[in-house]
Amino acid sequence: MAESVVRVDKSALEHFVYSVFQAVGLDEEQAAIVARHLVLSNLRGIDSHGVTRVAVYVKRLECGIVSKKCNMTIAKETPSSVLINGGNGLGIVLATKGIQLAVAKAKETGIAVVGINHSNHCGMLADYTQYAAQHDCIALAATNAPSSMAPWGGRVQYFGTNPFSYGIPAGTEPDIIFDMATSVVARGKITLAQKNNQTIPIGWAITKEGEPTTDPSEALKGLVLPVGGPKGYGLAFLVDVLSGLFTGAAFGPYIGSLYKDMDKPQNVGQFFMVMRADLFEPLKDFKNRIDQMIREIREIPLAKGFAKIYLPGEIEIETMRDREAHGIPLTMEVVNELKEVGKRYNVVPHF
Amino acid sequence: MAESVVRVDKSALEHFVYSVFQAVGLDEEQAAIVARHLVLSNLRGIDSHGVTRVAVYVKRLECGIVSKKCNMTIAKETPSSVLINGGNGLGIVLATKGIQLAVAKAKETGIAVVGINHSNHCGMLADYTQYAAQHDCIALAATNAPSSMAPWGGRVQYFGTNPFSYGIPAGTEPDIIFDMATSVVARGKITLAQKNNQTIPIGWAITKEGEPTTDPSEALKGLVLPVGGPKGYGLAFLVDVLSGLFTGAAFGPYIGSLYKDMDKPQNVGQFFMVMRADLFEPLKDFKNRIDQMIREIREIPLAKGFAKIYLPGEIEIETMRDREAHGIPLTMEVVNELKEVGKRYNVVPHF
Repeated sequence: MAESVVRVDKSALEHFVYSVFQAVGLDEEQAAIVARHLVLSNLRGIDSHGVTRVAVYVKRLECGIVSKKCNMTIAKETPSSVLINGGNGLGIVLATKGIQLAVAKAKETGIAVVGINHSNHCGMLADYTQYAAQHDCIALAATNAPSSMAPWGGRVQYFGTNPFSYGIPAGTEPDIIFDMATSVVARGKITLAQKNNQTIPIGWAITKEGEPTTDPSEALKGLVLPVGGPKGYGLAFLVDVLSGLFTGAAFGPYIGSLYKDMDKPQNVGQFFMVMRADLFEPLKDFKNRIDQMIREIREIPLAKGFAKIYLPGEIEIETMRDREAHGIPLTMEVVNELKEVGKRYNVVPHF
Repeated sequence: MAESVVRVDKSALEHFVYSVFQAVGLDEEQAAIVARHLVLSNLRGIDSHGVTRVAVYVKRLECGIVSKKCNMTIAKETPSSVLINGGNGLGIVLATKGIQLAVAKAKETGIAVVGINHSNHCGMLADYTQYAAQHDCIALAATNAPSSMAPWGGRVQYFGTNPFSYGIPAGTEPDIIFDMATSVVARGKITLAQKNNQTIPIGWAITKEGEPTTDPSEALKGLVLPVGGPKGYGLAFLVDVLSGLFTGAAFGPYIGSLYKDMDKPQNVGQFFMVMRADLFEPLKDFKNRIDQMIREIREIPLAKGFAKIYLPGEIEIETMRDREAHGIPLTMEVVNELKEVGKRYNVVPHF
């Protein structure tokens, strides 16, 4: 893979993506939100949710299956909750506004729940829980996704890889931002392996006949497996209930595919639960305690085969430092895809 | 194992446990709460959290390391939250009162968060989330536990098996009640295997030298493993933050051991988040949707080697039906332990 990778400056990449989305017809605010989010995903090493999504987002905006205008409305509101009707806008824009609303409400009342229906693929949840942590809140976030995983014991897909994320504010240590798919791996990692002509490890997925596979194309036609069997299945179920059933969004197999359904809105749902970190204890005490926990974990003797104990999300922080300093590595496949989209809108990449 | 098991009637068992706790010095309400909870755990097949705990609970009450009186106080309160100082009372009593308070508050305001500090081992979380589901609420529950699991990559214990549970009310289908340890299995299952002289499968735990083991005694001296490696570690971290750091309870290795520390309060923490299921959508719609999801999952074709797709928590429902009809199977080890405790208090078991 190494020979076909180029390192790209984050600002140049973000400006390019911003310009493309503006040219496609988004207003400045939306274009900025989406560009920042996608490049942040790459910076954190979550390449599956980074600029590799530009082409499909543009395609969906072009064919009108995602609204270029942000038409979100407040469908229901209480002092501690908001239901947002996303009006089939861009998921990243809706989720960004949703978490801002949740944090603002939690600041007032201590706790807030925000649900979003009629939404779309919202990228990397870590962005939203990080926002809350930066504002001294604890946040839980969930979104459902097109089905690609069977309930444990089944061989037909029903759930998506339904990710779950949390953010916890720390004191002098970095905030803890955790983001996991309830599958063994995120489906996006298999899509990226396919795009980069790589194989995948056994145990990530099965073919549609139920056989183990290392071929990402076979895996994408088949099923990803839930992490820990019934446990990952139980978590995927919860994510679908919170983000889909509870908000009134689609759920299970009724969520439109990001890549295949160009004539059907996704109707993805998002769920955020935000609490002030000082709801019960003074903020200083909470932060001292989380800092203590972080430092104590770092001091734990290593198991065989490990060079370091990472805090949840710490690998992403390290990747971010590296990529901010040395650029974001993009495969030529991704670079060419971006260039092709840019060309159609006369946006020239300066990377 | 089969030859040393007796089937015991649930009412007879519950009455015996109730009488023991009354004789030890609990008031009627507390004795009834604890007896009901422990027998419910057995009914649901979670024997590790059932009457096998009677002896150690009694021992802790006797030596005064758990308070016989329920001295819980409200430490902090807002319209949507309560922090309870458990006053070192019985965890099952405190958690029962905590979830009742959370549901009552959620009924008023839509959402409630309840934290409990200075608490103790609270048994099986499913009891609490089930209560919320029965009251048409969605609930998340977490409690930390004495350390027995290393952060991923470490070889010294820091986290407990830190369980997480949720409850979701259904319509005509049974409510969905899910309860998982963030370890591959609950530590209580290893304790029970030890008590019953059984081996454990490879992959559940490692010895303190970091080697795989099938010996429950070696496993109990060693470490249980987080489910899905870094994912289970991340979830255990969250559970400790919500139930420990956030509430002001102890966390990580500072939680007292249920079995070993007879001179140190556990200071366990509990966390409940409860929302009305109809916060966003009418209750009827929510319930229709969850019923639909449940029925669709049941219809999914089976993978090889499976006879049925279980809904989250459905195995426990089936076990409960069987045990309500045919009695609760107890090993002679557990029966003898109960008889011994009963003898000390002149409580005769009628089973």
